[in-house]
Amino acid sequence: MRTLWGAGFEEDTNQLVARFSQSVHSDLTFWQEDVIGSVAHARMLGDTGIISREESNLLIKGLEQIHEEGPDRLPKDVEDIHTAVEVRLREIVGDVAGKLNTARSRNDQIATDTRLFLHNELLRHLDLLKKLQRTLISLADKHKDDLMPGYTHTQRAQPVTLGFHLLAHFWALQRHGYRAERLTLLANFSPLGANVLAGTSFPINRDQTSDELGFTAPIPNALDATSDRSYILDALHLCAQTMIDLSRLSQELVLWSSREYGFVTLSESVTTGSSVLPQKRNPDMAELIRGRAGKAIGNYVALATALKGLPLGYNRDTQDDKPPLFESLKLTRDAIRLSHLMLETANWHTDRMREAVRGDFSTATDLADALAARGVPFREAFEQVAKFVRHCEESGISLEDATMADLHHCIPEANEADLVLLQPEESVRRRNSFGAPGPEAMRIQLERATAVVEAEGFAELA
Amino acid sequence: MRTLWGAGFEEDTNQLVARFSQSVHSDLTFWQEDVIGSVAHARMLGDTGIISREESNLLIKGLEQIHEEGPDRLPKDVEDIHTAVEVRLREIVGDVAGKLNTARSRNDQIATDTRLFLHNELLRHLDLLKKLQRTLISLADKHKDDLMPGYTHTQRAQPVTLGFHLLAHFWALQRHGYRAERLTLLANFSPLGANVLAGTSFPINRDQTSDELGFTAPIPNALDATSDRSYILDALHLCAQTMIDLSRLSQELVLWSSREYGFVTLSESVTTGSSVLPQKRNPDMAELIRGRAGKAIGNYVALATALKGLPLGYNRDTQDDKPPLFESLKLTRDAIRLSHLMLETANWHTDRMREAVRGDFSTATDLADALAARGVPFREAFEQVAKFVRHCEESGISLEDATMADLHHCIPEANEADLVLLQPEESVRRRNSFGAPGPEAMRIQLERATAVVEAEGFAELA
Amino acid sequence: MRTLWGAGFEEDTNQLVARFSQSVHSDLTFWQEDVIGSVAHARMLGDTGIISREESNLLIKGLEQIHEEGPDRLPKDVEDIHTAVEVRLREIVGDVAGKLNTARSRNDQIATDTRLFLHNELLRHLDLLKKLQRTLISLADKHKDDLMPGYTHTQRAQPVTLGFHLLAHFWALQRHGYRAERLTLLANFSPLGANVLAGTSFPINRDQTSDELGFTAPIPNALDATSDRSYILDALHLCAQTMIDLSRLSQELVLWSSREYGFVTLSESVTTGSSVLPQKRNPDMAELIRGRAGKAIGNYVALATALKGLPLGYNRDTQDDKPPLFESLKLTRDAIRLSHLMLETANWHTDRMREAVRGDFSTATDLADALAARGVPFREAFEQVAKFVRHCEESGISLEDATMADLHHCIPEANEADLVLLQPEESVRRRNSFGAPGPEAMRIQLERATAVVEAEGFAELA
Amino acid sequence: MRTLWGAGFEEDTNQLVARFSQSVHSDLTFWQEDVIGSVAHARMLGDTGIISREESNLLIKGLEQIHEEGPDRLPKDVEDIHTAVEVRLREIVGDVAGKLNTARSRNDQIATDTRLFLHNELLRHLDLLKKLQRTLISLADKHKDDLMPGYTHTQRAQPVTLGFHLLAHFWALQRHGYRAERLTLLANFSPLGANVLAGTSFPINRDQTSDELGFTAPIPNALDATSDRSYILDALHLCAQTMIDLSRLSQELVLWSSREYGFVTLSESVTTGSSVLPQKRNPDMAELIRGRAGKAIGNYVALATALKGLPLGYNRDTQDDKPPLFESLKLTRDAIRLSHLMLETANWHTDRMREAVRGDFSTATDLADALAARGVPFREAFEQVAKFVRHCEESGISLEDATMADLHHCIPEANEADLVLLQPEESVRRRNSFGAPGPEAMRIQLERATAVVEAEGFAELA
Repeated sequence: MRTLWGAGFEEDTNQLVARFSQSVHSDLTFWQEDVIGSVAHARMLGDTGIISREESNLLIKGLEQIHEEGPDRLPKDVEDIHTAVEVRLREIVGDVAGKLNTARSRNDQIATDTRLFLHNELLRHLDLLKKLQRTLISLADKHKDDLMPGYTHTQRAQPVTLGFHLLAHFWALQRHGYRAERLTLLANFSPLGANVLAGTSFPINRDQTSDELGFTAPIPNALDATSDRSYILDALHLCAQTMIDLSRLSQELVLWSSREYGFVTLSESVTTGSSVLPQKRNPDMAELIRGRAGKAIGNYVALATALKGLPLGYNRDTQDDKPPLFESLKLTRDAIRLSHLMLETANWHTDRMREAVRGDFSTATDLADALAARGVPFREAFEQVAKFVRHCEESGISLEDATMADLHHCIPEANEADLVLLQPEESVRRRNSFGAPGPEAMRIQLERATAVVEAEGFAELA
Repeated sequence: MRTLWGAGFEEDTNQLVARFSQSVHSDLTFWQEDVIGSVAHARMLGDTGIISREESNLLIKGLEQIHEEGPDRLPKDVEDIHTAVEVRLREIVGDVAGKLNTARSRNDQIATDTRLFLHNELLRHLDLLKKLQRTLISLADKHKDDLMPGYTHTQRAQPVTLGFHLLAHFWALQRHGYRAERLTLLANFSPLGANVLAGTSFPINRDQTSDELGFTAPIPNALDATSDRSYILDALHLCAQTMIDLSRLSQELVLWSSREYGFVTLSESVTTGSSVLPQKRNPDMAELIRGRAGKAIGNYVALATALKGLPLGYNRDTQDDKPPLFESLKLTRDAIRLSHLMLETANWHTDRMREAVRGDFSTATDLADALAARGVPFREAFEQVAKFVRHCEESGISLEDATMADLHHCIPEANEADLVLLQPEESVRRRNSFGAPGPEAMRIQLERATAVVEAEGFAELA
Repeated sequence: MRTLWGAGFEEDTNQLVARFSQSVHSDLTFWQEDVIGSVAHARMLGDTGIISREESNLLIKGLEQIHEEGPDRLPKDVEDIHTAVEVRLREIVGDVAGKLNTARSRNDQIATDTRLFLHNELLRHLDLLKKLQRTLISLADKHKDDLMPGYTHTQRAQPVTLGFHLLAHFWALQRHGYRAERLTLLANFSPLGANVLAGTSFPINRDQTSDELGFTAPIPNALDATSDRSYILDALHLCAQTMIDLSRLSQELVLWSSREYGFVTLSESVTTGSSVLPQKRNPDMAELIRGRAGKAIGNYVALATALKGLPLGYNRDTQDDKPPLFESLKLTRDAIRLSHLMLETANWHTDRMREAVRGDFSTATDLADALAARGVPFREAFEQVAKFVRHCEESGISLEDATMADLHHCIPEANEADLVLLQPEESVRRRNSFGAPGPEAMRIQLERATAVVEAEGFAELA
Repeated sequence: MRTLWGAGFEEDTNQLVARFSQSVHSDLTFWQEDVIGSVAHARMLGDTGIISREESNLLIKGLEQIHEEGPDRLPKDVEDIHTAVEVRLREIVGDVAGKLNTARSRNDQIATDTRLFLHNELLRHLDLLKKLQRTLISLADKHKDDLMPGYTHTQRAQPVTLGFHLLAHFWALQRHGYRAERLTLLANFSPLGANVLAGTSFPINRDQTSDELGFTAPIPNALDATSDRSYILDALHLCAQTMIDLSRLSQELVLWSSREYGFVTLSESVTTGSSVLPQKRNPDMAELIRGRAGKAIGNYVALATALKGLPLGYNRDTQDDKPPLFESLKLTRDAIRLSHLMLETANWHTDRMREAVRGDFSTATDLADALAARGVPFREAFEQVAKFVRHCEESGISLEDATMADLHHCIPEANEADLVLLQPEESVRRRNSFGAPGPEAMRIQLERATAVVEAEGFAELA
């Protein structure tokens, strides 16, 4: 029964070629940009007298009708989106449709569409980043006093607070916003009018179309305008960067929601359960985000490799720049929204976090610091503290529960204040250097984060 | 004779562990940054009274001695550069060396070193980009009237000029400069004082060290400061981008210097020859640049993959962020310099380029455009021109050599002016839309490029 | 007019979660394997008495009905293919459908489906490779005497024949067949019955289902059976390897079909033209194959990165292993077929190739070899030949046109036989070492290639 | 003080070119293979009479001297290893050294060296895999009855044993051995004698050199022999695969050695500690292995990208195939050895594992299975069990501690035997399907694993 395919499964050669080279289904993603770009071009052709004002108006009216009709009326059995729009336009306005391609080619048109599309997508992206950042600030403020272990090497290192930890992710997102905003500036130049690769002898006005479409300026070299795909690779890098940082947050949520950690219960909406085990919650969304960071990196590689070693001028290889772009932008936006959802609906077990801090000996360094501050040479201070930690461990007590007798037994110079230092609350309370989890430092950091997120855009990085 | 290794080739377990985890040889690349960062920290410790002024001065003096001695005096049989410097410092100043690590850990120290190093490297990078750009402008100016075929799909499409083509690469480099400069802004924040991950209770002054080291400001979250590696991935992306564009230029040089193209002869300094064939010149440097774009992409993947799914806080995985950074920065700089060398010393065969333009029928579109401009409907114009091209092809003549009779035979409306249009010189002369290769457009583009390269930095993109 | 999206573009949270985690549309690719796997499981449950014979028969009958109905009747608004089949089965056979999941989980089921699917795909793959290989042999036989330049560094190095060059690609494909066949052996083990991760207490018979489904044997560890995805990464590697070699062939076709080379004209079916320039043929299929090698490499990276650092046991990250697998297998098969089409319908310009050999001085090494064979020390032989080449170059003659006088002028020991050596035909005729392009060596190579392709499978590599 | 580089840091142009293209330092890795390959070539030249027997003997003697001297005597200021050996050979035997290059070029020589090197490396690799496998069997046997939680989604799912879990890694390694062994077969063909790309007119004997060097046969196409690098990409894939699986094991060790899990304490030899916290053990080796899986993937990408789109014939781009090969092979071997060391010296806390199983409700599915086996419809069985689990959770008891009353309260049909089922020991004891963790199944699996590891090579996969 294993043979699944009968005779004649092979498709026709022409179908194969058509399918292998067709991009219209993917291109539909930016059908609007294609239409809008054509409107600007048609208007410019009329304004410069390259075609008559009447022809220009006819073309614009037809294109506006297509924009209103939506993508359903566009033919799908054509090679690409430009052809689809042109065919439909011809149905509406007749042969004058052909004049739309005066002083323009698919080479500058596809570049224009892609840049317009990317710009719009990045604006949505920035908006979602701000939302996630606001949620992080709000959670950080709420949990600014809730102690949890701070980790290095996945080992408990020093007590911090949940609020402090969450703000670390805030600043990572701020950098992604900064990058995305910089990319809107880098990519926002108009290729329209570059034509095949060498401009045109028609007296076109590239400034006009650039302005109408919201670009900063026309690209100053027509060959560059039709050859450059580096802004798409920038976008794929941006997505990979963002997905990597979200994968790090997701990994934390996977760990924290395990029974071993028990720091958080994710909401049912972002987990899957078991029909038998009602308490079981698999962190599926976090796992999918983590895994799809791989996809975002793979998409980067796909385009980077395709571009390597290509001579300038349009090459068909670059047709494949758009599917990874569409996919990476979408999955990154989804991941931002899902991270937001996971955090917003999570049930934090701050008691379990506090309990985890107990008995992890992570305040020992505070004691060593205090001795050093009193002038005990470092090496000696370390040795005494190490001795004290071993003593507690052997006695089966946590540092928090040590008595003055325990302390003196190992560290003759110790005093009552040192005993207080061993309490995690005290450890955190005293860490008020800039950027630290202490209450005064956190107040300043929260203020700064709030100012940053309320500012227009993402210009500030600290 | 095939067995190459005798018994006992296995190294000792301790050696294996030491070798696998050691980074000191790679770290030596930024030994200076490590010393300079320590000087700033030592000064701050003294200024804030955390250690005495005398101790501070002693430490600074010792560090300055290390800086003068150079890396040869640093021990190499230690784990990392921080240890190497500390060991040497202890030799010079004695036990007070231990005080240098007050309120600091290797976690914030390594991040400080890497950021300082990256900043300095990027400045060198920017400098080299400007140099290559100046050479491109100079060559473009010299060859602004030298005709060559413009290609799409590696097929001749329209006549352009060598100068026009070279300027396309100019603008690509400008974007790399823009990216690199943006990265100097993004990455130039100070992690120093973040300590293990949670700051310190010592009254450190992070603003002071940030200022002394030339950073914009301290990073506002200590966990973020010790966890973030995204600026390194940005740098690897920057290198990959630049290498990809240089691989495109290199691919062109490989093709152009082939016997089939014959457009250029690369100088002996960047090629290898054959002992038998004196005229043979293998474009080895161009091939190596092309191939090493792969390395730059691979380095990106190495770090991206390592970072994916890492919880925050220092993880040893990130030790491996530096070797790819060092390698990618170095090979990209080398590739910029070698591209410069290849272009500067190349012998351009403009006669062969001009000859290639002849007979490639690439001015046919100019004729079609002209007919359309005179009101002939596009479709009809295209059909007539296609007929004319076929006629010339069958008659074995190039468009340039066609007579008025040939023209009239296929296109009744044709006139003498149309005949002129078929000359490639005329085709290019008339293409003066913004960014096109026509003389007027090229004058403007060269002016713009000159203004851009003479401006401070890389703020302008068009 | 730039704002494209109105208010309320955001989808509902539940929709987002469902969309992000849904795999049913992608899974439909192997709906048949899912059904077939279930039939085997149902039969085994009946045979072992875990469910009754009647129940077993009922389930099998229902599944066979689904197999006949085809995928259109399966519900699409469910999470995955397993649910889709189960829902449909329940519609057909009622509540007994639930018994199908006895001693089975989605974890072993998805692994079974994927392995069955991959096996069938690889068999198709092997079939297509043989077809392309046969075409290469046929072309190589036809062109075994047609001279063309052999290249290193994209520079002409030594005369070879078109037939010889094409056979180089034959052997590359043979290795891909060898790899693919090895993978069918590696991957053909049954995970069915591994259940969630730890088998079952039901007395299942894994040998029976393994046999019925055509597997070699059951996988011996249930945790491994549900955790392993390495065979998918092997498949992605296989696709990347094949695409890389096809990209090399495509690059050659792009170059050879350029006006500069003029070695081949690709057929209209695999090129796109220009409405104006009837002679213009853009090698779009070759370019797309070349570019999509990047996609195949990117897919490899996507999965490799997703798997890195995953603990054993099912993790949701691995849901994303299938879309790259489906895509890479499909595009590789398409590329094999299109390479076949390009080669089969190409019009080879052997006269242009022969002409290219003329005047490239590439027979100079033959002369040097001949001198050396006569006992002239190598260095001296090289110097004399180099002198002779320079002499011809300066005189503007090719080596083929040199006279005895030219030869003697530089090489006193030269004789008439040496003059013959300078003819490319003679150069190739004499190169009959094993694997060389000489006629005797080519006869042997063609015989060997024919034997290899006619053998069952791909066991032979030389 | 930030300016680090004074004037004149730029190296000389010639130095830059030399450094960029030099490979001798990397090549030294296979200096022995280069010498051995030359010995075989020299002997063949003498045996076929291409050079005299005396010359042949002189060359062989000189090469054997070089082999004895070791790499220190080879000059390092040359371009590559071939030149280094030739220069040294000339010092020893004089001008006859030049005859060694008769009918050979660097193109076939480098391919021969690389294949010999890879073969030897893979044999070492296979040896290390066997060692690690033996340790896994031994540990699995020791811990075959030690209960631990089995995880899916990093959530506890079903009780298994430590021995069962470790054997899952055994089978993954067996696949890596199978792949590596297959690669020794695929790659073991001789390129020697392919010369520049087209063989030679000298009457060489490629069978002889192939045999002497231990190859299976000569490669049947000289162009393929000098162009193919796919076996190197196979090797990089093999390394990436192995590193990915070891990264999964390492990730488990990182988690298991955390305070939250507490399943294992890694030995001091593979961890780093803290001067203050004697109990802190950072799993540095596991983290480095995990991170370096990224490096192995990056190396794959570097070569894959470099090969994409290269025409056949030697291209200088492929010089860069060797450094990633050397690096990936070395780091993979190191990682195998370190994994071995980590496992062998680990201190397993089986009591903590057993404790973790308690209270995770993971035996609930066993109860549901039992009810179903007694004929209770699945859905009903699931509902009853879910109700019972909720009851226990609310009562604060684990399933293990539930009484008959608790059970009856939710499941009227329950009996005393069901109570036993809730004990994890019983759950595991009953799971004896092939590949499951039950004692009978594990006995069979251990036997099978032992047979597999004791067999010659890696032919068996189950």
